[in-house]
Amino acid sequence: MVVAHESLFQFTKSILKAVGCSEQDAQLGAKVLLSADLRGVDSHGVARLSGYVRLIDKDRVNTTPQTKIIHETPSTGVIDGDSGLGLVVGPQAMRLAIEKAKNVGSGWISVRNSNHFGIAGYHSMMALEDDCIGISMTNASPLVSPTFSKERLLGTNPISVAIPADKEPPFVLDMATTTAANGKLEILQRKNADAPVGWVQDKEGNPTTDSQGVKKGGALLPLGGDREHGSHKGYGLSAVVDIFSAVLSGANYGPWVPPFVAFLDPASDPVGKGIGHFFGAMRIDAFRPAGEFKSHMDNWITRFRGAEPVIKGHKVLVAGDPERELEQQRKKEGIPLLDPVVKDLMDIGQRFGVDFPKS
Amino acid sequence: MVVAHESLFQFTKSILKAVGCSEQDAQLGAKVLLSADLRGVDSHGVARLSGYVRLIDKDRVNTTPQTKIIHETPSTGVIDGDSGLGLVVGPQAMRLAIEKAKNVGSGWISVRNSNHFGIAGYHSMMALEDDCIGISMTNASPLVSPTFSKERLLGTNPISVAIPADKEPPFVLDMATTTAANGKLEILQRKNADAPVGWVQDKEGNPTTDSQGVKKGGALLPLGGDREHGSHKGYGLSAVVDIFSAVLSGANYGPWVPPFVAFLDPASDPVGKGIGHFFGAMRIDAFRPAGEFKSHMDNWITRFRGAEPVIKGHKVLVAGDPERELEQQRKKEGIPLLDPVVKDLMDIGQRFGVDFPKS
Repeated sequence: MVVAHESLFQFTKSILKAVGCSEQDAQLGAKVLLSADLRGVDSHGVARLSGYVRLIDKDRVNTTPQTKIIHETPSTGVIDGDSGLGLVVGPQAMRLAIEKAKNVGSGWISVRNSNHFGIAGYHSMMALEDDCIGISMTNASPLVSPTFSKERLLGTNPISVAIPADKEPPFVLDMATTTAANGKLEILQRKNADAPVGWVQDKEGNPTTDSQGVKKGGALLPLGGDREHGSHKGYGLSAVVDIFSAVLSGANYGPWVPPFVAFLDPASDPVGKGIGHFFGAMRIDAFRPAGEFKSHMDNWITRFRGAEPVIKGHKVLVAGDPERELEQQRKKEGIPLLDPVVKDLMDIGQRFGVDFPKS
Repeated sequence: MVVAHESLFQFTKSILKAVGCSEQDAQLGAKVLLSADLRGVDSHGVARLSGYVRLIDKDRVNTTPQTKIIHETPSTGVIDGDSGLGLVVGPQAMRLAIEKAKNVGSGWISVRNSNHFGIAGYHSMMALEDDCIGISMTNASPLVSPTFSKERLLGTNPISVAIPADKEPPFVLDMATTTAANGKLEILQRKNADAPVGWVQDKEGNPTTDSQGVKKGGALLPLGGDREHGSHKGYGLSAVVDIFSAVLSGANYGPWVPPFVAFLDPASDPVGKGIGHFFGAMRIDAFRPAGEFKSHMDNWITRFRGAEPVIKGHKVLVAGDPERELEQQRKKEGIPLLDPVVKDLMDIGQRFGVDFPKS
């Protein structure tokens, strides 16, 4: 089924209002979720809506959070998200980072007591309109094993960096610090297809091509896949995300991060509050004149995109290119939804008396 | 041959003085180089000394640089390294980042017109003694092909993040954004051994296990190795390093970065000055009380190091563990040097009338 993004946005917003969010928060939350569907990160869009609702049902997400700045300096700060939706808390924190960047050149905000914040790229890209470089990261439920570890101790802990250009569209990196994002694995699971070596280990810690491996007690692998291919680097980056997001802010880290799924309980011995995020903004003219920077970014992007490809016609891409193309397409043609997602959304719609859009 | 690190330090310092560095700069440059040898990053230590000397011979490195702050805000700045040794310019820039962190919570310095700065970890670790998180990165001569590219457009562009703990030693990530660092490949080249798939592509852009592949016109591969294993992520991270180091500062970026080797000329159409670095410092108590942060870091480190290993006895490591162990060992037992490195150093010693240490 394909649904126009505006209709899906209105539906999502109505559901968020029905579960208790303010008009403004529902608007923002729906916008963040839809940005994932538009950019092709289907695992982080409306497919997650029922998951958020189940967490709200269990009182694990507060729909009327009073976020607080716990501590700040001119260029840094910590925000307590009051158990709110990360979709709403995240943009507030990013806004504060941008304000600090306007005042003193850069702003860096660590967030505790939050929940899943959607796609990292939404938040980093907020900085672009103010001619800032935007950075966002978050920790997440433990699904990933460090190099040499049988245990799952880290989330897919994404990093996003958005960098403005002039005539060219911005550079937007948005990556899980695993070899493959969980969403990619889910696609293989639905097809009953094997996963490439280097994506997953089984519950004994051995490499496996079983795409169901994580569900069977195995783990996703850090970017690199194994030690010989640099998995200690993916593990190291994921650790930095975890520490910046949670040890700096006072959120839960590592294996203590509360699970996204409502049927698993949070750890009984938390080391902090909720999950953590980290946001940064750097004003480009805090380094050199914005026009100069942007014209060199155009040159950078053009040079890389114009590189001689290995396979003729198979162009070298710049971070953000595929997502932007998909966004343009989906804005026109609508958002394709899998049957189980449609069913899920229709069920929620029925429960809250909100009609699911027919197209 | 094994040489005591103090003797090797004195030798290196004397050579740096002989080529024109001040007492202070020679001291610092030797310290940075030796830190690589002590930590086991042999490719970035005294083995590079003759390379620096050849660049000085060609007037491509200025031994008496007058570095200048080109632009600054309370939390950011750009430094022009006046073509100085990165070994000397780097610590100056990191010092400025730390000072800004003391004043306003964080400091971020982009550097242009510099040269190779040794190991990234030296600079990031400078922040630890001031209870700051330290970040350092640099661009480098193009040896790496972006995903889908036949051309080499990026350096091994390392990222280092150093994070203080309390009783535990600090977390120190120091990684090239390639599957394997060039130094690791050189070890295989000397042994005439094959490289694992995912490290190198040949000059047509096809995967190869030929460890001489890069010398034959091929390229190192970004962390991930190929698209299926996430090489677009390694490429994206490397791109961020390049942009933060050079587009923010006005240094050369991408394929325009001047080669480290003196027998290759810099591009005739530079897009900036010299190579670029990027440094960051964040005061931990700009987020939460330092004691709280550090005790949670201890907990983080202990939990990860204590994770159940896949292979009994093969412990899960924390970033910085292997380098620290090697440093302790080499401080006691001395630094092992390969014969060609010893010959190289003896030749330089002879040229400048500096005795090479016998042990």
